[in-house]
Amino acid sequence: MEKTYFRMEKDALGQKAVPQDVYYGVQTVRALENFPITEIPIHKELILALAEVKKAAAIANMETNMLSQKIGRAIVSAADKVIDGKYSDQFIVDSIQGGAGTSINMNMNEVLANIALEMLGRDRGDYDFCSPNTHVNMSQSTNDTIPTAFKIASYRMTQELVTIMTTLKKELMRKETEFQHVMKMGRTHLQDAIPIRLSQEFGAYSEVVGRDIHRIEQAAEEMRMINLGATAVGTGLNAKTEYVEKVVTQLSAQLGVKFCSVKNLVDGTQNTDAYTTLSSVLKVSAMNLSKVCNDIRLMASGPTTGFQEIKLPVKQPGSSIMPGKVNPVMIEVVNQVAFQVAGNDQSICMASEAGQFELNVMGPVMIFNLLQSLKIMKNGLDVFTRYAVSGIEANIQRCREYVEESYGIITALNPHLGYETAANVVKQAIETGLTIKEICRAHKLLPEEELDIILNPSEMTTPGIAGSEFLMNKQV
Amino acid sequence: MEKTYFRMEKDALGQKAVPQDVYYGVQTVRALENFPITEIPIHKELILALAEVKKAAAIANMETNMLSQKIGRAIVSAADKVIDGKYSDQFIVDSIQGGAGTSINMNMNEVLANIALEMLGRDRGDYDFCSPNTHVNMSQSTNDTIPTAFKIASYRMTQELVTIMTTLKKELMRKETEFQHVMKMGRTHLQDAIPIRLSQEFGAYSEVVGRDIHRIEQAAEEMRMINLGATAVGTGLNAKTEYVEKVVTQLSAQLGVKFCSVKNLVDGTQNTDAYTTLSSVLKVSAMNLSKVCNDIRLMASGPTTGFQEIKLPVKQPGSSIMPGKVNPVMIEVVNQVAFQVAGNDQSICMASEAGQFELNVMGPVMIFNLLQSLKIMKNGLDVFTRYAVSGIEANIQRCREYVEESYGIITALNPHLGYETAANVVKQAIETGLTIKEICRAHKLLPEEELDIILNPSEMTTPGIAGSEFLMNKQV
Amino acid sequence: MEKTYFRMEKDALGQKAVPQDVYYGVQTVRALENFPITEIPIHKELILALAEVKKAAAIANMETNMLSQKIGRAIVSAADKVIDGKYSDQFIVDSIQGGAGTSINMNMNEVLANIALEMLGRDRGDYDFCSPNTHVNMSQSTNDTIPTAFKIASYRMTQELVTIMTTLKKELMRKETEFQHVMKMGRTHLQDAIPIRLSQEFGAYSEVVGRDIHRIEQAAEEMRMINLGATAVGTGLNAKTEYVEKVVTQLSAQLGVKFCSVKNLVDGTQNTDAYTTLSSVLKVSAMNLSKVCNDIRLMASGPTTGFQEIKLPVKQPGSSIMPGKVNPVMIEVVNQVAFQVAGNDQSICMASEAGQFELNVMGPVMIFNLLQSLKIMKNGLDVFTRYAVSGIEANIQRCREYVEESYGIITALNPHLGYETAANVVKQAIETGLTIKEICRAHKLLPEEELDIILNPSEMTTPGIAGSEFLMNKQV
Amino acid sequence: MEKTYFRMEKDALGQKAVPQDVYYGVQTVRALENFPITEIPIHKELILALAEVKKAAAIANMETNMLSQKIGRAIVSAADKVIDGKYSDQFIVDSIQGGAGTSINMNMNEVLANIALEMLGRDRGDYDFCSPNTHVNMSQSTNDTIPTAFKIASYRMTQELVTIMTTLKKELMRKETEFQHVMKMGRTHLQDAIPIRLSQEFGAYSEVVGRDIHRIEQAAEEMRMINLGATAVGTGLNAKTEYVEKVVTQLSAQLGVKFCSVKNLVDGTQNTDAYTTLSSVLKVSAMNLSKVCNDIRLMASGPTTGFQEIKLPVKQPGSSIMPGKVNPVMIEVVNQVAFQVAGNDQSICMASEAGQFELNVMGPVMIFNLLQSLKIMKNGLDVFTRYAVSGIEANIQRCREYVEESYGIITALNPHLGYETAANVVKQAIETGLTIKEICRAHKLLPEEELDIILNPSEMTTPGIAGSEFLMNKQV
Repeated sequence: MEKTYFRMEKDALGQKAVPQDVYYGVQTVRALENFPITEIPIHKELILALAEVKKAAAIANMETNMLSQKIGRAIVSAADKVIDGKYSDQFIVDSIQGGAGTSINMNMNEVLANIALEMLGRDRGDYDFCSPNTHVNMSQSTNDTIPTAFKIASYRMTQELVTIMTTLKKELMRKETEFQHVMKMGRTHLQDAIPIRLSQEFGAYSEVVGRDIHRIEQAAEEMRMINLGATAVGTGLNAKTEYVEKVVTQLSAQLGVKFCSVKNLVDGTQNTDAYTTLSSVLKVSAMNLSKVCNDIRLMASGPTTGFQEIKLPVKQPGSSIMPGKVNPVMIEVVNQVAFQVAGNDQSICMASEAGQFELNVMGPVMIFNLLQSLKIMKNGLDVFTRYAVSGIEANIQRCREYVEESYGIITALNPHLGYETAANVVKQAIETGLTIKEICRAHKLLPEEELDIILNPSEMTTPGIAGSEFLMNKQV
Repeated sequence: MEKTYFRMEKDALGQKAVPQDVYYGVQTVRALENFPITEIPIHKELILALAEVKKAAAIANMETNMLSQKIGRAIVSAADKVIDGKYSDQFIVDSIQGGAGTSINMNMNEVLANIALEMLGRDRGDYDFCSPNTHVNMSQSTNDTIPTAFKIASYRMTQELVTIMTTLKKELMRKETEFQHVMKMGRTHLQDAIPIRLSQEFGAYSEVVGRDIHRIEQAAEEMRMINLGATAVGTGLNAKTEYVEKVVTQLSAQLGVKFCSVKNLVDGTQNTDAYTTLSSVLKVSAMNLSKVCNDIRLMASGPTTGFQEIKLPVKQPGSSIMPGKVNPVMIEVVNQVAFQVAGNDQSICMASEAGQFELNVMGPVMIFNLLQSLKIMKNGLDVFTRYAVSGIEANIQRCREYVEESYGIITALNPHLGYETAANVVKQAIETGLTIKEICRAHKLLPEEELDIILNPSEMTTPGIAGSEFLMNKQV
Repeated sequence: MEKTYFRMEKDALGQKAVPQDVYYGVQTVRALENFPITEIPIHKELILALAEVKKAAAIANMETNMLSQKIGRAIVSAADKVIDGKYSDQFIVDSIQGGAGTSINMNMNEVLANIALEMLGRDRGDYDFCSPNTHVNMSQSTNDTIPTAFKIASYRMTQELVTIMTTLKKELMRKETEFQHVMKMGRTHLQDAIPIRLSQEFGAYSEVVGRDIHRIEQAAEEMRMINLGATAVGTGLNAKTEYVEKVVTQLSAQLGVKFCSVKNLVDGTQNTDAYTTLSSVLKVSAMNLSKVCNDIRLMASGPTTGFQEIKLPVKQPGSSIMPGKVNPVMIEVVNQVAFQVAGNDQSICMASEAGQFELNVMGPVMIFNLLQSLKIMKNGLDVFTRYAVSGIEANIQRCREYVEESYGIITALNPHLGYETAANVVKQAIETGLTIKEICRAHKLLPEEELDIILNPSEMTTPGIAGSEFLMNKQV
Repeated sequence: MEKTYFRMEKDALGQKAVPQDVYYGVQTVRALENFPITEIPIHKELILALAEVKKAAAIANMETNMLSQKIGRAIVSAADKVIDGKYSDQFIVDSIQGGAGTSINMNMNEVLANIALEMLGRDRGDYDFCSPNTHVNMSQSTNDTIPTAFKIASYRMTQELVTIMTTLKKELMRKETEFQHVMKMGRTHLQDAIPIRLSQEFGAYSEVVGRDIHRIEQAAEEMRMINLGATAVGTGLNAKTEYVEKVVTQLSAQLGVKFCSVKNLVDGTQNTDAYTTLSSVLKVSAMNLSKVCNDIRLMASGPTTGFQEIKLPVKQPGSSIMPGKVNPVMIEVVNQVAFQVAGNDQSICMASEAGQFELNVMGPVMIFNLLQSLKIMKNGLDVFTRYAVSGIEANIQRCREYVEESYGIITALNPHLGYETAANVVKQAIETGLTIKEICRAHKLLPEEELDIILNPSEMTTPGIAGSEFLMNKQV
């Protein structure tokens, strides 16, 4: 059996053994004991963003003459390694933790301190030389670094999501063009309404996705406003004014994105409306997309006992028992993503409301859920676009049959016959099994040539009164 | 016993008795029987907005030569009377109803037809002369008039809410100025943190309310985009192109607000993201306000066993059993409004997801909840501002005592002593009951004059390192 | 113009004018000013229940010799009048109010005091003689009377709901029997699965409604546990031990339902889990019913472009523009009720979490929502049962056609051919347009007589392997 | 660079390369490509439960003579290995997936088939010999195995949760006993109310946890009702009647828990109310616990600027910047768990509503969230109990000072002086800074000895009227 060696580390609570070969330290060990909650690690996107923050802070601390070049450069190098994806196994604290993120902040501070110490030829744990708190966390607090890292991660993931959604929108528009000439029945209340084009369905989907993109972009803008330099409560205690300026500039340079200080650091430290706003916007979009998915699943229902208006790409056998069954799995997964995003918003919303005074200590659960929402929407919509939307085919014949069989075209007769007479026509059509036109003909309601023009479904899909030329001066 | 007289009316389902003296007709009677659900009538703001829509439609129908001046003018006059608040007892259908609003649309169509008939010297129910469907509903469908009326009502109520919130923000800023010199302890995790000013608390509140106002205004903009002219499914069947243009222009003129046609009427008829977006934004704001209210209730807690940092205006005896008790009732009501708005958003969100194809038939429950959210936020924040915020007084002495008694000022010593030494100082202070300064003095950690400068709480409330002049060239 | 007369009343905050002719008093007037929030009055069911509580308290106070017979009897008579539905216009405070219900409690105390004073020949407002606090509220607090009244109202409304749901269950079972012989296709993922009977669909609906009833009944049991006698914080200060016993007994006698004291009055005063539990159970049921309604709307979709498996009773014209259109309005209304109940649960849940120490001051918003949920479920399911479920008709022919046309029956061949071969059969069937049987025949996969037995849809609707006799000793 | 070898596998969609050394097969590879959504694997508890189901099914298939002993025994052995925790790296499909769990079912079927093949000396992928569908999935469908595994996992995790919660309840009761003599002020509306004992607070907490345990146990009972044998839609097609009986008996024997067939398999396959019920009950409990946590954090607030009524065990340094700060991290984590559980319930609730006809295809998202809720409540409450509750200490002196300083004891004078006079006394006390007793004395309101008895706080914490002996025959 392998023997484990330990080193002893000390913090305000006393000594504690830390495995010899790890880069994290005593406070991480405590956090590991304290919070075995979800068994899901912190999103890697947050880890990377936090390392960026630490790097920027070290540089700004050197520039403002608070931190020696020797220690500062070592911290920067350590942060660079983490940013490069190394040491990812050293970030072990749980996604849901008490302490408003102190544990993940200290996990990072300890890992960076120990990597730096190693680079400086010192032993791990030699914190007198390079301390997680005094050096790595200099001019910082959990209360400004964690929200800043959260915003960086959110901003970046939002950009990725927007890219995916833009592709989705394009594919929907491509389908709109493709289905320009596919007449189908419009349905309201799941009941036959009046003719529409399949392109118009996809056009409507593409429009709403377009608005969603716009709203997500707008909400993402709030993520560029950060409270770095706020330190503990937003008053900026222990952060030099020059530091505050420099660190934000430095961070923007590193990330290639302009981040700005919030106008009021006290506000920026205690309020979480940027997160709830982004989450809400994701939820709104999720509901829109779920509706689109419900429509697609209905149109694809069948093959014989459903609507059969479209065909979806086949992605996997649909059943472990029913041979040949194919299910709309790439659509169902988006519905589920939508429900997950809605639930996540609920958690975020309650966490937001629970803030008290200078800090919202429920940050970790907000991070967990918001980054998850961004991730699953991005991932889900990517496969939805590529494996489902882009391969949708119209069942043109079926769509046309529906239009021909349905009584919904009666509406076009309203301006010519009045609503009440038209209602009688459709009633008789249903009772007799005759078509609308046949009933009209039987009762000589309108001349044949007028009927032909008025009852042409294709004309019904744009604004206007079919056969309005016959109505001239025929006011009611 | 009073005798009730009836008239017989007929619709597609057959004859039905309608009380002789009412202006609504057969379809309203059916709706009344079908939907005895909430026992709460439709928001009056929706009724007024729908009457505006009917008026605009009648004018546009006359202008496009579809409707005779005689009938059209009578409908316009009838609508004007409803807009003036008359006949409000004639709108009797329930807030939650099946049929996507057909019942409230028909309730309006019938009332206007019968008022018009009366003005034209005809009997109520003489629909051959002026029909709820053929004349009043001309060029319209429930599916465009109800969403349009919903957007008008939402837009107007949003404007009222913004006005109220702007006043709230001003009052919070006034308090910020008033409390400029009130030092108090900042708290994170409900534990003593470091000094802050009471003005900074109110400044943070005013900032978040400011952002909320901005988001609400932005969401309200989407309410100006209407689908009037879309008729049944968004294709505009039975609405002349000229009508669509004229009706929107006419409506804008009537309302004094620029309303526009949505770019894509099919999209505008089936998607409900404008509603979910506004609702979400209200929920975000509600959560922010609930957090502010929680803070205020905590600061006002006491009078002897709580924080006692502020005093609230006394608005009513607080207890039916405990004499002299005063409760923060005007704050609690805002918390409850917030929870209600969050629940309403949940209903709206589920209803939005339930849309299918060309129409979301869950409109009524969305209307019920969104207009309620707007109403209760407006009403709740109005009394909150006037009866609570504007009368808040600081307990300056109590706030100062907290600062003087607390160990939180230790943080200012970090840059001078290092985090670890500072931690030892506070530990000893707690154990011995001595102050931070006394411990520093006892251990001769820093010269007296440096301590005086570094430990001055007032300096701690703005960014910077207290006593940074003593740190010169003292890098770590 | 009519002149309004006022009387002056006084409370701990000072004097205030009260309209001369009203029975409520100064504290109600204050509440009216303070809380113009929803503009929806308190549920009448709560008012009645609160009057019952006041009556029982007065009787118990007389029996324990705290209250004189003269005053006590007058209060009892006053309460009886309110219970009889009189004076309902005197309860004017808003549904959402701060103060944990103090305003509605005082509204009741004042109305009863003034009715009693009138009966005793005294002037309204002569509170030295009969005081809303000292006499009517004797041995009580808002903190025990309002929760008790809430539980009484909830309990009663739950009983009504259960009655309605029991009728719904019976109707569903009646349909189950009626549709015993209607073969239809089962669908999973909205894709053809294997045959099922229409009766089995309705059987499944009736089962889930049955479980819902059971859960609602169970949750209602918690409503019989009341905290009357707890007074302000649950310690029972100012309530004699004998009073506590007598008042609960008296209340039970009045209501004809056994109510009991909670075991721990402190617990019973601060915890609100009985409400969240009932609300949750309603939400669970609402989700179940919404699923059932979605199924029904799908089965009824058409008449030509949908599933057309069932026909719903026609309850009103479906469209203001599309003649002859009929919509499933009685089903849609239940979907909306379900969303409303889910949103209400959300508000209740957040309010419950917001309790602090000895009392949850968010009671009013919980009352508003929970009683609304009970009411709309009761009302909604009543009309759903009577106007929709009981009149559902099967489209037997359409259902049979689906079974005959579908490939789903292939599953029955699995045990005989293996999943992989069966999958090939269905693939060929789809490609060629031939039936499953024809493909099997073409490939001589099984003898004709075996095919006849195995592919009989009717046999597929009960457990077992169709044609298992041919499988004898044929293990795989 | 390492070379990867592949084997080719085939399913209904065609051939696909599978890494040579893995046990999963072609359908798992497809699922991996199709669903890269959460990047979180399926809960291991579900995997184990599903292996148990497969084992039981293989045994029942052998017993009913459908499956040969040779193949059957190999499958059983394979399942046993998975149950022992081996091969856990072979279950790689994502937690959120389309297809209602077909992918996880097939992942299991493929892994078991390949382990069995290996044991039988065959190559991986030799499915003619032992097929994932024909052999491993015999008599089963995703639609019965996944719900059954879900219920098994839920049931087991619920039992663990109940054990943890029972310990929590005991600790709360231990504190109740410990704090029997600690007088403190009760608070309502965060305002001083009347005296209470600290034990009564903890007693109330323990009561509500007790009810939560009861409700969770009750909801867990529904998890013992399974639909194994329902196969695809609940009709049991392809499952012998004897199999259905045997498989449930076998499963119960394996698990040591009595599982039963649901009465109606069609109902049991489509309805998901058992999950929503359990989730709701967890949410109700989460809200209760969050309230308890809020109370504890308030009582522990300080050390100098808060309530300071209790002290919590110190578990980790509270701040990366503020030396000596200790935060209630073990309490905050439970608040966050509560918000997560509430959000999860929301997702589950929406997924439940989205079921259609014979199956709810949103199963995976329900599984993901419900098992997470169970896990985090179990984990969170475990550390909460051990690291927080069990070490709570009372600050007896502080609690007593609050009682002595507060005016809340005035309530005890109501029966003696009347509410209105008592209100005046407290008003004067506040204005003058004198105590209640001093004011009474000054106005000679009651004899000194009566005051001593009436105003004894200790007497106020149980029902009764303090000094009721002085009230004899003193009715009002």
